Amino acid sequence: MALSTRIVPLVAALALATCAAAAPSRDAGESYVRPAAPPVPADNAMTPARIELGRTLFFDPRLSGSAWISCATCHNPALGWSDGLPTAIGNGMKTLSRHTPSILNAAWYKRQMWDGRFASLEEQALGPIGSADEMNLGLDEMVRRLKDIPGYAPLFERAYPGEGIAARTVARAIASFERTVVSGESPFDRWQQGDARAVGDDAKRGFEIFRGKADCVACHQGANFTDDGFHNVGVRQRDGVDDPGRFAKVPVKAMKGAHKTPSLRDVAMTAPYMHNGAYRSLREVVEMYSRGGDVHDNLDPNIRKLDLTAAEIDDVVAFLQSLSGAPVQVAIPQLPN
Amino acid sequence: MALSTRIVPLVAALALATCAAAAPSRDAGESYVRPAAPPVPADNAMTPARIELGRTLFFDPRLSGSAWISCATCHNPALGWSDGLPTAIGNGMKTLSRHTPSILNAAWYKRQMWDGRFASLEEQALGPIGSADEMNLGLDEMVRRLKDIPGYAPLFERAYPGEGIAARTVARAIASFERTVVSGESPFDRWQQGDARAVGDDAKRGFEIFRGKADCVACHQGANFTDDGFHNVGVRQRDGVDDPGRFAKVPVKAMKGAHKTPSLRDVAMTAPYMHNGAYRSLREVVEMYSRGGDVHDNLDPNIRKLDLTAAEIDDVVAFLQSLSGAPVQVAIPQLPN
Repeated sequence: MALSTRIVPLVAALALATCAAAAPSRDAGESYVRPAAPPVPADNAMTPARIELGRTLFFDPRLSGSAWISCATCHNPALGWSDGLPTAIGNGMKTLSRHTPSILNAAWYKRQMWDGRFASLEEQALGPIGSADEMNLGLDEMVRRLKDIPGYAPLFERAYPGEGIAARTVARAIASFERTVVSGESPFDRWQQGDARAVGDDAKRGFEIFRGKADCVACHQGANFTDDGFHNVGVRQRDGVDDPGRFAKVPVKAMKGAHKTPSLRDVAMTAPYMHNGAYRSLREVVEMYSRGGDVHDNLDPNIRKLDLTAAEIDDVVAFLQSLSGAPVQVAIPQLPN
Repeated sequence: MALSTRIVPLVAALALATCAAAAPSRDAGESYVRPAAPPVPADNAMTPARIELGRTLFFDPRLSGSAWISCATCHNPALGWSDGLPTAIGNGMKTLSRHTPSILNAAWYKRQMWDGRFASLEEQALGPIGSADEMNLGLDEMVRRLKDIPGYAPLFERAYPGEGIAARTVARAIASFERTVVSGESPFDRWQQGDARAVGDDAKRGFEIFRGKADCVACHQGANFTDDGFHNVGVRQRDGVDDPGRFAKVPVKAMKGAHKTPSLRDVAMTAPYMHNGAYRSLREVVEMYSRGGDVHDNLDPNIRKLDLTAAEIDDVVAFLQSLSGAPVQVAIPQLPN
């Protein structure tokens, strides 16, 4: 299916190129239907007790060296599960070099982080905790701390009977919670289900451009609007940082400056944009793509000058805005003591 | 009434002193009945729109210079609306010298902050935002920023029609929200209403000691368990900080080292304790009072050696734990952009 969704829009793009005045039409496109439950690893079935423990850990600042930074500090539910900043702030309030990726729909990603260095949510969950630049808490110390909080023992026992408080159970619980942080039904989804009035004509035209003339679906494809791949799309540098991206993990030329394709669901909630937050608004991002990228060294072959008109850019932005669903409602836990 | 609650327990204490084996008895004590709605200033009536705006601002990190620290970062709903740390962490992750006071029941305080330097929630709300050590955002810049976020204009217009985005409306909205952060009904309250089984015998005995032998009610009196006064209760120093407390604002000898009497409702949720977080647990606090304080310079006349037995200390702790109500449920807002 991934292959066909990559090819069909290219054909559609060619068709549109010779028929620019074609009326916008709703796509039957099953591949854009909002995904159901995310995949779950065989050794970490989702249970209410695991989700509850994960939610508790996610909001607990004692998972940082300072006991002041929780997962939710940067993956802030009030800001689309990101932080609203160009690049993240970490331990000591040091400014880091990459934009905090939203947790939303991370459940479907095949690899986690901008450079894809973690293969699962379970692997990823411990990364920022242990990183000296981020939460700065050694995992042994994390386990000691959690064991010192009597209220945690029963939560772990209910979630992972007999397994105890350990890095592995912490990681699996947080991953279980993160699998509940998924986008709600959006106007786009309602339109796809047949409600012609769910989105405006601008969003409908924008979707045609998105999968046609602009060929955004070359990478932002399928239900989660991502190919789970890595691409150098010509993002301008910020503060002189030349980020190798995926190349640091997979040293082949195509990966130089390549970053993971993020989901576009709820994308309107997570400004600023790109791996380094260099673009403040969706409009700025679409304009960058229209120019064919801002840095042309090692550019992904999918990126080319589009010369969208201002009206077309408006339409694509309207389409992207139509991908915002009702916010995930997560109650703030009462942390154990 | 304040006068009578100060005198009666002293009499009761004397009575208990001569009759140590007196059976615990439930107090009719109207003064301990959970308070109804908090007082509201005439110029800031509580409306749903004001509470909603205040909630939004309370969770918005853009009210700090770094755009990373919100009111909720330190007044964390997951940690009893405090931060679980001995003393607060501020801008640049600098450790400050005082414990973050809980927002819970601040609605009833006659003065805000440990040193009482603000007379109302409205005054207080802007203090930490503008403080270079805390959120570090000048109020003019705060107003400019909020005006630059289009989604805020309608929230302000609904809350304060015609008044616009200004320091005064920000302060009043946050104060309106804070007046909703009040303790829920506790086991103690149910006991006071006549449910004899709502608390254990230990808590009942602890309450007798609290208002009798230990005379805690000399300061922790009435429905909110505070006299709204300032007292030097002999708290040990942390990190060599000699905190003048209320004396810095009211330079009379009795105020040297005196800090505000906090409410005890939900006190089990807000460890560590005292203005400098020097005591990790309620038991450590009760032990300190039993010793007659740890520093005896300029001690409040209400503080004296109590020599409570280990069992009596257990009972007072059980009573304090019975003051925890169901947590305030506050939904995380979606911040405007």
